[in-house]
Amino acid sequence: MSKIAIIGLGHVGSTTAYTLVSRDLVDQLVLFDKDEKIVTAQYKDLKDGQVGLNSHLEIIKPSLQELKDTDIIIFSAGKISVQQGSGNRFDELNYTKKVADEWGPKIKQSGFNGILINITNPCDVIARLLQELSELPRNHVFGTGTSLDTARMKQAVSDKLGVHANSVHGCVLGEHGMTQFVPWTSVRIENTSLSQRLTDEEQDSLEHQAKQNGMDIFFGKGFTSYGIANQAALIVQTVLSDSKKIMPVSVYNPDEAIYIGEPALIGSDGVEKIFPLDLTDQESHKWDKSVQSIKEMYAAI
Amino acid sequence: MSKIAIIGLGHVGSTTAYTLVSRDLVDQLVLFDKDEKIVTAQYKDLKDGQVGLNSHLEIIKPSLQELKDTDIIIFSAGKISVQQGSGNRFDELNYTKKVADEWGPKIKQSGFNGILINITNPCDVIARLLQELSELPRNHVFGTGTSLDTARMKQAVSDKLGVHANSVHGCVLGEHGMTQFVPWTSVRIENTSLSQRLTDEEQDSLEHQAKQNGMDIFFGKGFTSYGIANQAALIVQTVLSDSKKIMPVSVYNPDEAIYIGEPALIGSDGVEKIFPLDLTDQESHKWDKSVQSIKEMYAAI
Amino acid sequence: MSKIAIIGLGHVGSTTAYTLVSRDLVDQLVLFDKDEKIVTAQYKDLKDGQVGLNSHLEIIKPSLQELKDTDIIIFSAGKISVQQGSGNRFDELNYTKKVADEWGPKIKQSGFNGILINITNPCDVIARLLQELSELPRNHVFGTGTSLDTARMKQAVSDKLGVHANSVHGCVLGEHGMTQFVPWTSVRIENTSLSQRLTDEEQDSLEHQAKQNGMDIFFGKGFTSYGIANQAALIVQTVLSDSKKIMPVSVYNPDEAIYIGEPALIGSDGVEKIFPLDLTDQESHKWDKSVQSIKEMYAAI
Amino acid sequence: MSKIAIIGLGHVGSTTAYTLVSRDLVDQLVLFDKDEKIVTAQYKDLKDGQVGLNSHLEIIKPSLQELKDTDIIIFSAGKISVQQGSGNRFDELNYTKKVADEWGPKIKQSGFNGILINITNPCDVIARLLQELSELPRNHVFGTGTSLDTARMKQAVSDKLGVHANSVHGCVLGEHGMTQFVPWTSVRIENTSLSQRLTDEEQDSLEHQAKQNGMDIFFGKGFTSYGIANQAALIVQTVLSDSKKIMPVSVYNPDEAIYIGEPALIGSDGVEKIFPLDLTDQESHKWDKSVQSIKEMYAAI
Repeated sequence: MSKIAIIGLGHVGSTTAYTLVSRDLVDQLVLFDKDEKIVTAQYKDLKDGQVGLNSHLEIIKPSLQELKDTDIIIFSAGKISVQQGSGNRFDELNYTKKVADEWGPKIKQSGFNGILINITNPCDVIARLLQELSELPRNHVFGTGTSLDTARMKQAVSDKLGVHANSVHGCVLGEHGMTQFVPWTSVRIENTSLSQRLTDEEQDSLEHQAKQNGMDIFFGKGFTSYGIANQAALIVQTVLSDSKKIMPVSVYNPDEAIYIGEPALIGSDGVEKIFPLDLTDQESHKWDKSVQSIKEMYAAI
Repeated sequence: MSKIAIIGLGHVGSTTAYTLVSRDLVDQLVLFDKDEKIVTAQYKDLKDGQVGLNSHLEIIKPSLQELKDTDIIIFSAGKISVQQGSGNRFDELNYTKKVADEWGPKIKQSGFNGILINITNPCDVIARLLQELSELPRNHVFGTGTSLDTARMKQAVSDKLGVHANSVHGCVLGEHGMTQFVPWTSVRIENTSLSQRLTDEEQDSLEHQAKQNGMDIFFGKGFTSYGIANQAALIVQTVLSDSKKIMPVSVYNPDEAIYIGEPALIGSDGVEKIFPLDLTDQESHKWDKSVQSIKEMYAAI
Repeated sequence: MSKIAIIGLGHVGSTTAYTLVSRDLVDQLVLFDKDEKIVTAQYKDLKDGQVGLNSHLEIIKPSLQELKDTDIIIFSAGKISVQQGSGNRFDELNYTKKVADEWGPKIKQSGFNGILINITNPCDVIARLLQELSELPRNHVFGTGTSLDTARMKQAVSDKLGVHANSVHGCVLGEHGMTQFVPWTSVRIENTSLSQRLTDEEQDSLEHQAKQNGMDIFFGKGFTSYGIANQAALIVQTVLSDSKKIMPVSVYNPDEAIYIGEPALIGSDGVEKIFPLDLTDQESHKWDKSVQSIKEMYAAI
Repeated sequence: MSKIAIIGLGHVGSTTAYTLVSRDLVDQLVLFDKDEKIVTAQYKDLKDGQVGLNSHLEIIKPSLQELKDTDIIIFSAGKISVQQGSGNRFDELNYTKKVADEWGPKIKQSGFNGILINITNPCDVIARLLQELSELPRNHVFGTGTSLDTARMKQAVSDKLGVHANSVHGCVLGEHGMTQFVPWTSVRIENTSLSQRLTDEEQDSLEHQAKQNGMDIFFGKGFTSYGIANQAALIVQTVLSDSKKIMPVSVYNPDEAIYIGEPALIGSDGVEKIFPLDLTDQESHKWDKSVQSIKEMYAAI
């Protein structure tokens, strides 16, 4: 019997919950939000949303005691109006830092000893903060990081080259934010790296397109939900079934002493391994810039 | 290769689209909305939402020509602000009538000859209007009707009696609206009807609870999405696979010459059969009232 | 993390294992068979059978220590050649009794305290024997009983009346064997019992057809596998997710002090409730005959 | 509405059919076998095997006329006793050649114009023969080829290195038979090729292990079923949803003018693209040997 708690039931948290229900990935779901009416509404809508399915998922109302034997916490607290506002990433950080400050100690006190997956932005900084405040082992806390950016990069490549996104191997590295980058030398279709196959201009254009797609979603509907919920669900599935899949997530990088997006082996023990990066000079430069950006944000709190 | 068009990409339409993607129920999805930025945003978010899944769904941008070989149209156009406003159901009707007036002839001209499933409220009236305007055969047009109300009734019974909602047999009849009712003599757990098992008071209380749950969702989150998207997806699955399942939907009732919620056999030919209702006097009275209510609404347009 | 052990990897046990893998219903599977080469072969073929799926299932080689924290044991040991031989049901019993005699005490000693689901025939007698020998609580041991017979009855009704099997409500009662019977007064499509809708002759003919279908499978391919594996998987899903679904299985009936097929509420605590039977005189007579048959077989061991 | 025909209902064909039913990948399934009793038995067992599932699959009895609008034919005719016998691959060829000789013209006459996927061994030779006899376009006929061998290689790597098989990228090339080989320079985990990571000895040992696993399955249970059925189902899913995934299958190679296993882009138009092989000298030598072996077998018929 697997048990997951979702903290924060806005578009991202609730779509993630619905994805778990719809794909039958867990047995028990505990829902938390500061707005009680939202908790009740999502609780009831999610229950309605499984009538007629063969699968069954028990949905549980919020109580910190429930965290004690919870396998995974998904942290998706945020405030869309802050993001939609100034566009200043520090504004968002100021808000979400407070939520992390509130929840970190609560999670610690609850006796929770499972895996904490952070979605809240800025993802790399909040993941680190939650780890420090919850005092969970570093490998038991990670963020969705560049998993969504990787999906978007693969989708952009797929659109351009007519190959299914799943047949594009490789990932986006760095901050889940503006300084992220695609190491094209290690993105491959079949046995050919895309740095061989595409001109520099085409690479830049695809990288731009992937980011633009994210912007079009955010500004078109006011938030993004399906892409991130899908990644969160895939990560949950990997942890719960101890799959040992390699996924690009925001993990603690011991060299830089920060959380940052890179490929990691994910299993029931959380982040079980990270891999040495094999970057060109130009890519290393981008990595350093991304590290710097995350450090600056962290320093600001 | 199955192809579905969704007209109207608000919370209901887009959640239905995501459910179809997430459960791999179709091969092609065409998305329509009057707001082009929403179409683009949902198109891109839904594409992101399937990266990493084994299944694959082609998502297609809107063009009326696409309807010609579309198997199913899901009509989910609406305007949440109208519903959230006055609470007067005729206000909603005034708005959605205009959208149906716009789309009915378009659907006709497109050469569409598949199954049209209406979700837009007031569901029974709009289903009828769409059938008349599209000039599709009556059995090829139906509404989600009381399928969601039935899910809520089963969930309320499940909560009270500790039996899975799928093991509660029976359905809610009449208008997808205030005059709907539960014919408790034909709602059964195992071989016992709930009219035998529950007092009148308990029946009323459960019926009230089911409706209240719907209200709590709507007023708590501002809309309802998962429950209805799940029912729409189950109906789509039944039509596409020609399942011949019996489902409570809003169908053309020849005796009353209106669309109204009742159990129907659903297959690839749409509504393939309806069943004689076996009602007590009291239930018949409620049915008549519900018929009356739908007729009044239709007369108003 | 859910863990299931399958004891006996013939056609039924291995097809059940493959169904669990294919539908991603568990996290860990322990495989037992007296033939080590079969264990290795099924272990490796099942592992191959999930490459490329998103889901992941750990497959574990046999060790009695693994049973300690196993959630469900599926007992499917048998010998197809015995069944194919004389056709004398006591021959089969003689063989499977010995296997149950061997495994009952082993299960007890292993410290297993989950749910034991028996498929091995004669299902009702072996379920009882396994309960007595394992000394597990009676509600924690049950057999697949008439679940497969019910599926066949529904399929026969479906073929005749053109309604999906899932829209046929009701079940087959009694022995999973020759004395089983369909209580037609409680088999319903929509709100009409089939005893009202079908003549006695039609009822007998459908009942015969359902049994004949089972025979055609057994004698056509030498064994039956998909129907029973599907039922076993549905039951497993119900137990693991604590669904509280009502299913026709072979449970301990306190009035008769035997295991016999009847509808029961299934959850994580096994058989959580059985329902009073509401039989006509004729149906009661058939029930008594079936009880008698099971008692005779039990007495023979 | 998607329609698939399976020709040959032994362990492989019927397990493939059950996998399609169990995962809800098609709408209609037509079953062919020279033994009518087997057709009836599998037809009925597969129907039983979906009672209680939400999905629905129509199963259709054999008739050549059904092939006209069939989307995919899976050719899995064979005779297990021939394979189990001499171990001489030419014996198997002699038998299966006759079956292909019988079915090729039948398929042509039926007016079938979909995709033909061959599983029958020797897979590369029979795929070619079926293409020539059916006169279907070359890209519309291909074999499961080294897809199963690739799964086994990935599983062997996974077992050794503790990384999920899906995170191992690359494939087995050449004949689905003894001369197949793993081009280790293009098998990667993350961004590292396994030729860098493993010694030659380790590579050979893994390659041997993968083959040995296949032998253990075949000699342990007398046939292999789950691994191949899973690959066939994944390929079917890719064709039906026009996924454009890259899969290692047996395709027509224009340079060698034979069918042989190599990565190909698969979509609704069958084999939509093949990729230039990027082999080391040693790997090229193995490729040539494999080409030679397939040519010899073809020459023998």
